[in-house]
Amino acid sequence: MKIKDLGEFGLIKRLAGFFNQNLSSEIHGIGDDCAVIPYQGFQSFLITTDLLVENSHFIKGKITPRDLGYKALAVNLSDIAAMGGKPLYAFLSLGLPVDTEIEWMDQFFSGFKQLAAETSVSLLGGDTTHSELIVINVLLIGSIETALIKKRSQALPGDLICCTGYLGDSGAGLKVLLEELPSNEYTEVLVQAHVHPRAHLKEGAWLAQHACVHAMMDISDGLASDIQRMMEESHCGAHIEVERLPLSPPLIHASRTFDWLPHDLALTSGEDYCLLLTVDSQYYSQLNEAYQSCFQRPLYPIGKVLDTPKLIYTKDQHTYTPSKGGYDHFL
Amino acid sequence: MKIKDLGEFGLIKRLAGFFNQNLSSEIHGIGDDCAVIPYQGFQSFLITTDLLVENSHFIKGKITPRDLGYKALAVNLSDIAAMGGKPLYAFLSLGLPVDTEIEWMDQFFSGFKQLAAETSVSLLGGDTTHSELIVINVLLIGSIETALIKKRSQALPGDLICCTGYLGDSGAGLKVLLEELPSNEYTEVLVQAHVHPRAHLKEGAWLAQHACVHAMMDISDGLASDIQRMMEESHCGAHIEVERLPLSPPLIHASRTFDWLPHDLALTSGEDYCLLLTVDSQYYSQLNEAYQSCFQRPLYPIGKVLDTPKLIYTKDQHTYTPSKGGYDHFL
Repeated sequence: MKIKDLGEFGLIKRLAGFFNQNLSSEIHGIGDDCAVIPYQGFQSFLITTDLLVENSHFIKGKITPRDLGYKALAVNLSDIAAMGGKPLYAFLSLGLPVDTEIEWMDQFFSGFKQLAAETSVSLLGGDTTHSELIVINVLLIGSIETALIKKRSQALPGDLICCTGYLGDSGAGLKVLLEELPSNEYTEVLVQAHVHPRAHLKEGAWLAQHACVHAMMDISDGLASDIQRMMEESHCGAHIEVERLPLSPPLIHASRTFDWLPHDLALTSGEDYCLLLTVDSQYYSQLNEAYQSCFQRPLYPIGKVLDTPKLIYTKDQHTYTPSKGGYDHFL
Repeated sequence: MKIKDLGEFGLIKRLAGFFNQNLSSEIHGIGDDCAVIPYQGFQSFLITTDLLVENSHFIKGKITPRDLGYKALAVNLSDIAAMGGKPLYAFLSLGLPVDTEIEWMDQFFSGFKQLAAETSVSLLGGDTTHSELIVINVLLIGSIETALIKKRSQALPGDLICCTGYLGDSGAGLKVLLEELPSNEYTEVLVQAHVHPRAHLKEGAWLAQHACVHAMMDISDGLASDIQRMMEESHCGAHIEVERLPLSPPLIHASRTFDWLPHDLALTSGEDYCLLLTVDSQYYSQLNEAYQSCFQRPLYPIGKVLDTPKLIYTKDQHTYTPSKGGYDHFL
């Protein structure tokens, strides 16, 4: 059997089973956006890592080195955001072909550094090496008050399912790049969503302060995949009302032009990097009002948590079938 | 200009200069074997990371997946040993081709897990992804009492330079593998030193307890390269007496058979993963006696720290010129 037969989540389950360890009860390992290591009284470190490999996660000619450096940090910031934390320290491992231009590397560092400065992250170490392909591994350490940590596993039946941003823009931007579609004001917004994602750090830290927010994670593999992860960890199910998925005006416009199914992109394309959360339904209005006055955008309600382990998608009260289950790095 | 014109250490200096940050005085970033983050009173976390890429660090057919998993952790343990720490938590990022056999992956995990169990390390997270080449990034967190941390920068003129193990065996083992030399009881020891290195964790923790040990680091790029790093950081120089380099009986025997220069291998081939340290010369005898009774091996004295920033190699009182400067990942 080969690993493509397992898929990414099968592989992670196999790995987690292999390393079934006796951890002390405050330490959380594999299974959430970040690992949790308590330190000093009521504080914990949050730790996350992401590996980006040329031709698997990016194509050198389709993203500027500056955007790539920025994005390599952004995707990790999104995991810290997902648990409500504040990012602190980064470690960068970089494998580069020996004939890489210094200018390329400097631009990569600039993009990384810009976002590090914007988010008060210090680069504390890493590793550099020769490699036939560009390889980037970022590990990010954040911190949070232990009692405020939001996990994937905390969804409760009856909760409203919400997200903090538009879905599908990044996946549409990737299509624009790969299919070399014409650049215009709409497609440019989509491409930017793909190459220059914004981690919802402020939103995550704000939401972590509210006890009526139960489960939280970031949407990185596409909603259809990530809601499944969250519901598995929470031992619940979900009903997603597809017509409520927040779609950006550029996605709607480009979908008309290129004959795309925008709701399908919103469900199954990856790298949105906004937050997925569940909220105690009786507090939703109050929470949403406070959130709107803080962020000038709503917490988009997109469905409800069920007490049975099934995923239901409807669009205007009819059953809806997503074209696939979200992004899997091995499929 | 290309990065091969900079070399690995030029690249790291450029990166460190780029990220010239205002860190609080207790936090140590780029420039040593580990970064240091203080937590809780008098304790600090030590953090190190190593990136291994197929065809750059290993060749799939020349190392078993079990040894590769073991080694991926061992090289990081060696960095924790170099600062005197105790390893605690690991993060593993793994990029694998989609047609990798599950059996290969399970063997890789077994090797990693065996060493993790032996050293009480818990795997807390990571990332898995598709990649055209096998890519392995391990990040390891250890801890230590802050006052005991040993740095590269603490060598003082007049110190004796010592190492904790044989030099050159790993590099010789790599030659045996790459040149497909015949397997015998000697070459097998050398190959094992290359594929199954032992981090000197107990030695590092013991040495950290002694104030007469000044600077410490691990020997990973070859003594000639690593002594240069240590002396640069300490603003000193070094005189290495090449005839005193500890050579293993298998290396001496195989060098006769294959017409190698064993002292040259000891100086310039990488991946020894023993420790390099400097010791206040007036305490050496006392320290060595205590060390011997604990480890049944001496602290091998190999030279002396000079007060001027030069590197001198002699063999039996004659100037000796190493064939190259140690291993550089970009040259």
